[in-house]
Amino acid sequence: MKIIHYEGGESAPVETEGATGCSVRWLIGEADGAPNFDMRQFEVAPGGGTPKHSQAHEHEVFVLEGTGVVLDGDIERLLEPGIVVYVPPKEPHQFRNTGTTPLKFLCLIPRLA
Amino acid sequence: MKIIHYEGGESAPVETEGATGCSVRWLIGEADGAPNFDMRQFEVAPGGGTPKHSQAHEHEVFVLEGTGVVLDGDIERLLEPGIVVYVPPKEPHQFRNTGTTPLKFLCLIPRLA
Repeated sequence: MKIIHYEGGESAPVETEGATGCSVRWLIGEADGAPNFDMRQFEVAPGGGTPKHSQAHEHEVFVLEGTGVVLDGDIERLLEPGIVVYVPPKEPHQFRNTGTTPLKFLCLIPRLA
Repeated sequence: MKIIHYEGGESAPVETEGATGCSVRWLIGEADGAPNFDMRQFEVAPGGGTPKHSQAHEHEVFVLEGTGVVLDGDIERLLEPGIVVYVPPKEPHQFRNTGTTPLKFLCLIPRLA
């Protein structure tokens, strides 16, 4: 059993092209022996965001802190603590921080991504 | 894309033998077309808990609110907001609320569980 505080470990900058002000912590993953899916925690600085893109795999997201928007097609939908977002495989998406404090969320993806 | 607040949907009592004061919300699952893993949110009343058991599949847990313990072997480890727990497949575990307010956590499991 692995028990940690999510902010206890190191975060790394997200280097994906188009990402601005984003960092990630890998909370549960292959290194822990987790066989099927990975739990990551993202932090996006005010004004920053993830690139608008689509991926072959799904994302399961839970917003922890801050405010922002997720692009759902051409519509910006509000993100605030407690919001759950399911992004199906291949669906375009983008997360942006429109607030004045860090936008923090969990984002889980399948291992075969 | 599905976007909800985690407390916006209905919760159902957990009927598993040995569970006391537990309810669950299915946030992302097969009904949403999610192909690989499911996001659930549990709420455990003060004094309540999940049964001490083991299952064939892993659990990936994130504590949202409240305080409690998770049984790690014979040791009780503290749960508080922001704590992440990875329970490997087949490892015995039990979550209990030792506080005075609801213990709320996310618990994700693979689909083939």
